[in-house]
Order: sequence, then C-alpha cells, then structure tokens
Amino acid sequence: MIQKLSSEERATQLAQLAGWQAVDGRDAIKRKLKFADFNEAFGFMTRVAIKAQEMDHHPEWFNVYSTVEITLSTHDANGLTERDVKLARFIDQISAGK
Amino acid sequence: MIQKLSSEERATQLAQLAGWQAVDGRDAIKRKLKFADFNEAFGFMTRVAIKAQEMDHHPEWFNVYSTVEITLSTHDANGLTERDVKLARFIDQISAGK
Repeated sequence: MIQKLSSEERATQLAQLAGWQAVDGRDAIKRKLKFADFNEAFGFMTRVAIKAQEMDHHPEWFNVYSTVEITLSTHDANGLTERDVKLARFIDQISAGK
Repeated sequence: MIQKLSSEERATQLAQLAGWQAVDGRDAIKRKLKFADFNEAFGFMTRVAIKAQEMDHHPEWFNVYSTVEITLSTHDANGLTERDVKLARFIDQISAGK
C-alpha cells in the first residue's frame, strides 16, 4: 500500500509545486486553471484523463466553460502521496502559462 | 437573447426529466450519474463535451473516478432555458440505465 508523504517530504514537494495550495481540512492539494475557452479546457482535461488512467490515479475536478479546478489526494492512503505529486507535475507541465 | 422558461414550461419540462432535481437557491437542475469506472465516466463526459460545444451550451460538472455530477443552467438568461432541457435530454439518452 502506498504511504502518505512525511511532513518533511510534503513541505519539500509543495514548495516545488508553485501553483498548488493545500485544501482546508483535508490532506489534499488544489489548483485552479483558466483556459481560453471550453475547447482548450476540455482538451487539457482529456490529456490529464489519459495520464490518470495510465497511472491508475485519478483527480477530483470541476469544470465550467474555460475553468478547471483540480483536487489531488490519494484515497487509499487518506492523504497526499508521491502519486499526487507526479500527477500535479504532469498537470503543470501541460498547462504552463495558464 | 434566449428567454428563461416560464413557470408552467419549467414544471412541464422538469416532470419529463426524471433523473434531474432542482438546485437549492438557483434556477438550475442537477443530476448525479455513476458509471462502472473512470474510463466509462470520462467517455460519457467526452460525448457530452462534444455535444455541448456543438450547442454552444456547456455544463457545470464535477467528476471523481466513476461519478459525474452535472448542473445545468443558462448563464446568459440567469436561469433554466430550452437549451438546458435539450442538453439534459441528450445526457439522459446516452446514459440510460446509469
């Protein structure tokens, strides 16, 4: 079973994920992204969906038109793990400048 | 500009959209759908996304793994319109049995 990040690992990793913030009352991180329009937003979501399926690690996300709000946490570990960091990095990589 | 449904039209249409319920405090409707897994849930979302783009009328939606929660309302009209009913019917049609 995958282990939660230690407090130290968590702080180190979060410091490197500039666009993300901690979620109040949950061991999770979130990021809000704004795209040009729905086409671009859903195109982004499709890339993340394919990656998520490959990783067998899925986001919680909300979309309305050009906005996507993503929350990452590992349900099996009841908190943040390396998988969340990996998926967050992928998201940052494909959404640079948003 | 598209017009909100009248109270009578609204009642008639909602009676025909069995899986949908009114949203508290907003002139909007919502439906929660449960799929077999993420692949099926995101496949459904992709079909709705393509339809929404074609209609130029987009949902507000939340997804986590196999669950999709959809809210429909017409921002331009500040409430429910025929576009919401049309999109809701499409959603019902492609998710029959869910």
